[in-house]
Amino acid sequence: MKTALFPGSFDPITIGHENIIRRALPLFDKLIIAIGSNTNKKYLFSLEQRTNWIKKVFEKDAKVEVVSYDGLTVDFCKKMNATFIVRGLRNSSDYNYESTIAQMNHQLDNSIETLFLQTTPHLSAINSTIVRDIIIHKGDASKFVPKAIQQDFIKK
Amino acid sequence: MKTALFPGSFDPITIGHENIIRRALPLFDKLIIAIGSNTNKKYLFSLEQRTNWIKKVFEKDAKVEVVSYDGLTVDFCKKMNATFIVRGLRNSSDYNYESTIAQMNHQLDNSIETLFLQTTPHLSAINSTIVRDIIIHKGDASKFVPKAIQQDFIKK
Amino acid sequence: MKTALFPGSFDPITIGHENIIRRALPLFDKLIIAIGSNTNKKYLFSLEQRTNWIKKVFEKDAKVEVVSYDGLTVDFCKKMNATFIVRGLRNSSDYNYESTIAQMNHQLDNSIETLFLQTTPHLSAINSTIVRDIIIHKGDASKFVPKAIQQDFIKK
Amino acid sequence: MKTALFPGSFDPITIGHENIIRRALPLFDKLIIAIGSNTNKKYLFSLEQRTNWIKKVFEKDAKVEVVSYDGLTVDFCKKMNATFIVRGLRNSSDYNYESTIAQMNHQLDNSIETLFLQTTPHLSAINSTIVRDIIIHKGDASKFVPKAIQQDFIKK
Amino acid sequence: MKTALFPGSFDPITIGHENIIRRALPLFDKLIIAIGSNTNKKYLFSLEQRTNWIKKVFEKDAKVEVVSYDGLTVDFCKKMNATFIVRGLRNSSDYNYESTIAQMNHQLDNSIETLFLQTTPHLSAINSTIVRDIIIHKGDASKFVPKAIQQDFIKK
Amino acid sequence: MKTALFPGSFDPITIGHENIIRRALPLFDKLIIAIGSNTNKKYLFSLEQRTNWIKKVFEKDAKVEVVSYDGLTVDFCKKMNATFIVRGLRNSSDYNYESTIAQMNHQLDNSIETLFLQTTPHLSAINSTIVRDIIIHKGDASKFVPKAIQQDFIKK
Repeated sequence: MKTALFPGSFDPITIGHENIIRRALPLFDKLIIAIGSNTNKKYLFSLEQRTNWIKKVFEKDAKVEVVSYDGLTVDFCKKMNATFIVRGLRNSSDYNYESTIAQMNHQLDNSIETLFLQTTPHLSAINSTIVRDIIIHKGDASKFVPKAIQQDFIKK
Repeated sequence: MKTALFPGSFDPITIGHENIIRRALPLFDKLIIAIGSNTNKKYLFSLEQRTNWIKKVFEKDAKVEVVSYDGLTVDFCKKMNATFIVRGLRNSSDYNYESTIAQMNHQLDNSIETLFLQTTPHLSAINSTIVRDIIIHKGDASKFVPKAIQQDFIKK
Repeated sequence: MKTALFPGSFDPITIGHENIIRRALPLFDKLIIAIGSNTNKKYLFSLEQRTNWIKKVFEKDAKVEVVSYDGLTVDFCKKMNATFIVRGLRNSSDYNYESTIAQMNHQLDNSIETLFLQTTPHLSAINSTIVRDIIIHKGDASKFVPKAIQQDFIKK
Repeated sequence: MKTALFPGSFDPITIGHENIIRRALPLFDKLIIAIGSNTNKKYLFSLEQRTNWIKKVFEKDAKVEVVSYDGLTVDFCKKMNATFIVRGLRNSSDYNYESTIAQMNHQLDNSIETLFLQTTPHLSAINSTIVRDIIIHKGDASKFVPKAIQQDFIKK
Repeated sequence: MKTALFPGSFDPITIGHENIIRRALPLFDKLIIAIGSNTNKKYLFSLEQRTNWIKKVFEKDAKVEVVSYDGLTVDFCKKMNATFIVRGLRNSSDYNYESTIAQMNHQLDNSIETLFLQTTPHLSAINSTIVRDIIIHKGDASKFVPKAIQQDFIKK
Repeated sequence: MKTALFPGSFDPITIGHENIIRRALPLFDKLIIAIGSNTNKKYLFSLEQRTNWIKKVFEKDAKVEVVSYDGLTVDFCKKMNATFIVRGLRNSSDYNYESTIAQMNHQLDNSIETLFLQTTPHLSAINSTIVRDIIIHKGDASKFVPKAIQQDFIKK
C-alpha cells in the first residue's frame, strides 16, 4: 500500500492545494492531508475550522484522510506508514525552500521520498499569505478557495 | 489620465525607490506614492516622518502625490483611480515575490496592471532592511537615501 | 507621443506575446512590434511569414505597427523615436536574462527605459522554443498561438 | 498499471540519473527509460552505446525498460501507455526549465503528470555536459557514472 | 597579515559552517568566527553555549579565533583588522540574500571584500533553522553538527 | 605561495572581469589569467588579440600572469600549481552555473577551491555576449572595456 503525506498549514486551504492533491491522488492508495498544529505559530483560522474545510472539499474522495500533527514531519510519516511526501511548487523560491526541506527529511529518514508537482499555470500565483491578507482586509477571497467551501469566503 | 500607484513602506525612502519613481514618471500623468500604514506592522519611523521625507524628495515634482493607506492595494487603486502599479526589481528573489503579488492583484481586479522596472545597477543592492540595520547600529546611512534628505541621516 | 518597442523573434508569435502586447497597449500612443531579422540566426519561419501572422493578429489595433529590424535594439529605438521597450517575464530565468539586457541598453542610451510585465499565470509556460518543437514534430500547436491565426497551426 | 517515462539524452547516463530512477522505481509498476534520438542533435556517444550502458546498469531491475524515441515526449507517453513523466531537479535553473516543459506537456495532454524528485545532495553537481567535457579532455569521469559501467570510463 | 571574519548566529554551529571554515582557512593568517549577539533576536542556545561549541570544534586550529559581537559587521571588521568576510552559499536564494549584504558592506567600507564558497554538495541542505526544528521536536540532530560536539545532540 | 587561476574566454575582457581580478589580487601571491583556447569554440577575437588586451590592462601588476590553455581547468591548475580558482558572480543564473562547475572541479580534485566574488553593483550587467553583439553591430562598446584598451573599441 502506497501512502503519501501532504503536510501544510492550510490556513485556509486554497485551490492551489486542492489542485496538487487531486493530481497526486492517482499515484497513491492513501493520501493523508496533515494539518500542522504548531503551538508556537499563530494561525488565522482554528485547527477545527481548517480541518472542517478540508474534510468538506474531499468528502467524496475515499483515499483522502485528514489529520493534524505536531512535531517533525518525518516522525509523523513513520507513525502513519507514509513513505512519500507530496509538495507543490510554484516558482524557484518555493523550489529552493522545499528542496532543502526534502533533502533534510531524506537525511533524517532515507525511506521517505518527497515528490514535487508543478502547480497548474493558472493557479501558480495563489498564495496563502496573500489570501489571508485579502480576508483580513475584508476582500473577496472566494475565487482562491475550493468550490465546496467558496460560500464561506464571499464578501457580503 | 494615466495614474499609477507606487506602494511601499518607505521605512525610510531610499535612493533605490527614488530612482524607480523618477524613471517611471514620464509614463504617467500622476504617480501616487502610497505609504503602507499597517497597524499590525512595526515601523522604525512614524508615518508622519516617512511621509515628510518623501514629500521633501519630490516637492518639485507636480505629478507626484504622497498619501498613506491601509487595506488591500487593489482597493486603494480603485479609490484613487489608479490603473497601474509600479514596482522596482533588484534580483530574482524580488522578482519571485513581486510577480506573485502582481498576478494576485490582477486576479482580484483585472483592470489593474503592474509594471516592473529593473533597478539601475549601482543601486541594486540598496535594501531598506539593511538601511534600517545601519541606522539602528548608529552607522552612516546617508549615502543610501535621496540627496534632499541626506542631512537627516549623517552620523555625527 | 509615447512610443514603445516590443522586440522579439516571434518564430512564431504566441498567445504569450499577444497577452503582453495587449496589456501594454493602454500605456502608449504607439507600440512597434519589432521582428528581429538576424542573418546569422536560423528561424523556423520566414520573416515574411512571421510578419504576416503578427499583422493579422493586430489588424484592428490602430496603435500597433509591425516592422523588422537588424542591428542593436537601442539604435532601432532611436530611429523609431521609441523611448520605451516592453518585455514579458515568465520566471526567474527570464528575469535574470532580460534584466541584464535592459541594464545594458540603459547604459548604451539612458533615454531608453525597459518596462516588464508579468505573464498572465495561465500563459506562463508558453515558450516559443517548445512551440517550434511541437510544430517540427507534427504536433498541434494551435492552442499556443493567437486566435486570429490558429487555423494555420491545427494538425490535420 | 502505473507506468512512468524517464526521458533524456543519457549522453552518457550518470550517477545522477541512476539515483533519480532508483528512487522513483517503488512508485511505479513499469519505468521506461526513453533515450532521445533526435537526428538534428549531435551526441558524443551513439544511440547503441548509450542504450547498452543503461541496459547494463538496470539489468537486474525487472520494472525498467529501455527504449529510444524521436518526436514529442507526450506522444511517446501515449504510445507507451505512460501517464507519468519523472524528472530530477538539481537547482533553480533546472527547475525553471523543467517546470515550463512539464506545464507545456500537461497542456498538450492533461492526462500526463510530471513528478519531480530532488537530486540527492552529494550528486547535485553531476552534469552530463561537464561529464562529456571531462571525457573529451581525456579526464577520468568514472566517479560520475554508475558502478556497473565505471570500467568503461576509467582513464588509463 | 590576512584576516577574515566569518559572521553568523551559529545557533548551533553545523557541519555546513565547519566545512566552509576549514576550506577557507588556508587562505588566511587568521579567521575570526564572529558570533552575532543581537539583543533583539531570540536564539535557541545561549551565547555562552554557542561559543563553547565552536571553541571545541576548532580547539586545534591555531588560526581560528572565536568572538561575539553586536552592531554592524563592517564596524566589527575594522575593529578586528579584518579585510575579508567569508560566507558559504547553498542555493540561489542564499546567493540573492548574501550578495546584497556583501554589496552593501562594500559600499559602507570599500576596503572590505566578501568571499563566497559553495557548500560541498552533500552538505548543501544543512540549514540551522531546520536543525533547530529537529532539536525542538526532540529529533536526533547529531548528524548535522561537527563530530567534536555530536554527543551533545544525540537523542537519548 | 598562494596561486589562483581566473579562467575565461575574455572575448573580449570587460570592466567586469577587470574589477573581479583587481579585487581578488590582494588575496594571492600570483593570479594567472587563463584564456580558454578551445578549438571547437568560435571566438570573435583571436587568441593573440585577446591575450594582448589582457596583458595591456595588467602590465603594471607584477602578480598577474597571462596564459592560454586548452583542456580541463583542474588539470591546468595542477600544472600551474594553482590551488584556487576565482570567479565573479552577477546574478542567480550565473550562480547556478558557476557553483555546479565549482563542485565538479572540487570532486575531480579536492585540493582545488573556487572562490566567488560578487560583481560590484554598477558592473553587474556587463556581459561579454552583449558586448560582442554591440561590436558586431558597430556600436560603441568602449564603456564596457578596461580604460587601458578603450581606444580600440571607440566607434569612429
